[in-house]
Amino acid sequence: MFAVTILGNNSALPMHDRNPTSQLLTMDDQAFLIDCGEGTQVQMNRFKIRRSRINNIFISHLHGDHYFGLFGLLNSLSLISRTEDLHLYAPPALENILLEVFRVADTKLSYRLHFHPLEQEGQIWEGPKATVTAFRVFHRIDCWGFLFREKEKQRKVDIEKSREYGVPASFYTKLKEGSHYTRQDGTVVQNDWVTKAAPHARSYAYCADTLFEPSICQVVQGVDLLYHESTYLDDQVEKAKARFHSTASQAAAIAKQAGVKKLLLGHFSSKYTELLPFLEEACAVFPDTEVSVEGTTYLV
Amino acid sequence: MFAVTILGNNSALPMHDRNPTSQLLTMDDQAFLIDCGEGTQVQMNRFKIRRSRINNIFISHLHGDHYFGLFGLLNSLSLISRTEDLHLYAPPALENILLEVFRVADTKLSYRLHFHPLEQEGQIWEGPKATVTAFRVFHRIDCWGFLFREKEKQRKVDIEKSREYGVPASFYTKLKEGSHYTRQDGTVVQNDWVTKAAPHARSYAYCADTLFEPSICQVVQGVDLLYHESTYLDDQVEKAKARFHSTASQAAAIAKQAGVKKLLLGHFSSKYTELLPFLEEACAVFPDTEVSVEGTTYLV
Repeated sequence: MFAVTILGNNSALPMHDRNPTSQLLTMDDQAFLIDCGEGTQVQMNRFKIRRSRINNIFISHLHGDHYFGLFGLLNSLSLISRTEDLHLYAPPALENILLEVFRVADTKLSYRLHFHPLEQEGQIWEGPKATVTAFRVFHRIDCWGFLFREKEKQRKVDIEKSREYGVPASFYTKLKEGSHYTRQDGTVVQNDWVTKAAPHARSYAYCADTLFEPSICQVVQGVDLLYHESTYLDDQVEKAKARFHSTASQAAAIAKQAGVKKLLLGHFSSKYTELLPFLEEACAVFPDTEVSVEGTTYLV
Repeated sequence: MFAVTILGNNSALPMHDRNPTSQLLTMDDQAFLIDCGEGTQVQMNRFKIRRSRINNIFISHLHGDHYFGLFGLLNSLSLISRTEDLHLYAPPALENILLEVFRVADTKLSYRLHFHPLEQEGQIWEGPKATVTAFRVFHRIDCWGFLFREKEKQRKVDIEKSREYGVPASFYTKLKEGSHYTRQDGTVVQNDWVTKAAPHARSYAYCADTLFEPSICQVVQGVDLLYHESTYLDDQVEKAKARFHSTASQAAAIAKQAGVKKLLLGHFSSKYTELLPFLEEACAVFPDTEVSVEGTTYLV
């Protein structure tokens, strides 16, 4: 499964039963946590997500609504005696804060925490079937977006057809890579006669918090699902700009220009009780939009 | 009103819909926050407590379940544009952690935060009608208890009786202080003929987290309400000792020996789903016991 579960979709002030930012991404048999606002572990309890599944945590930036839940989560993982290594990718300054918080509490974690400082754009994680890339977004302080992408998949061998054309099973690995097969009589079996196209390699991009910045489109070009912050509605476009945030229709403009398949909105200002206007404003620009709902899982 | 509202009564792991430690104490027309575990501001929303009422925050110690909600609360107070000064009483090491958290976020608080390091026992706050005293309790790291006490009140003048005995209104201030009145003819009006005893000066003591330690009784002697941690039931008495915590009947033994009026239990281990056994074990030693319930206000 490649999917994202929203744990928090509000901006800084927790209100209207909405929580600060956190998401759980499932990809390549792994659970990744993206941002960790206050109360993330309580949201995990609520939505029956096992904390212990998470091996990698990505923190976009050091505004509190994106990481104040990390202290409690890391503590709790130790209290439940986690032993697996845990990898944390975050702006460099977080490391000393964490070390000091553990030091004053005389805390020795039950597991090894690897801190990976985010300092330059590029690939930060690689698994057998997928990668994670960090890229810069544009906020008041250093802030990172994350691109989760499946690796290009191999073509599927049609075994029945392969037998029919006399391709031996020992050549299947080459078939998956796209090779043609040359028979002993010199005739060639074209690859696409005996294979099916590789399944689409899916991708998810996370952009929060950020100013409306069209250069982001190059990075998120054609992703299957784009999560883009939309802190404000369009009548607050000046406030959005001043605070390095985006509006719903700006998020939709990014989605449209980048040619993504679907847009997911989040990071709503606490001033908004109702979220329907976000959907309306975004859909006018880019119809394949959803307003994120806490506890809901969106397939990529 | 002199009362305490429980915002969180669980120990470190948030479970069973119970939250880490926090309490709101109302005394002398002031709202005091005692400890501030993760999610405290969400609990305040839930129980309709206005964050802006709080002018003084007391942090007992630097284990995360007693202060990880502070970062978010201090941030939120700034987001809602608080201007009144805020006073924070906490172990010294918290100051640099807070400064660093604000620095990396480029946060300038909208209000002035006064940090008062807890370094020695004694009075730490005084208002017109009450005081707050810090005292040491016994935990794995430096940990403080807090004693909230109304000042001794003045005797009440019985105006009718005073007139009857010929005491002029100009002497009422002296009457309240307990003075006798000497009439012009040299005869003395005894104070207790024309006044009523001062109302009882109430007191509340907060002890979490702590080992069972009878020397605490001297400090909390005779308080109206004692909140004492009871992380475990009695069958875990060895574990309680090893982790510098108390059991329900140990908390009750402190209450009994200190001659308090009422005992309130809290800081329950996440291993316990049901809390009734805490009540049973404590009541066997000290009958005037209650198990704290989140969202409930207890009069002092």
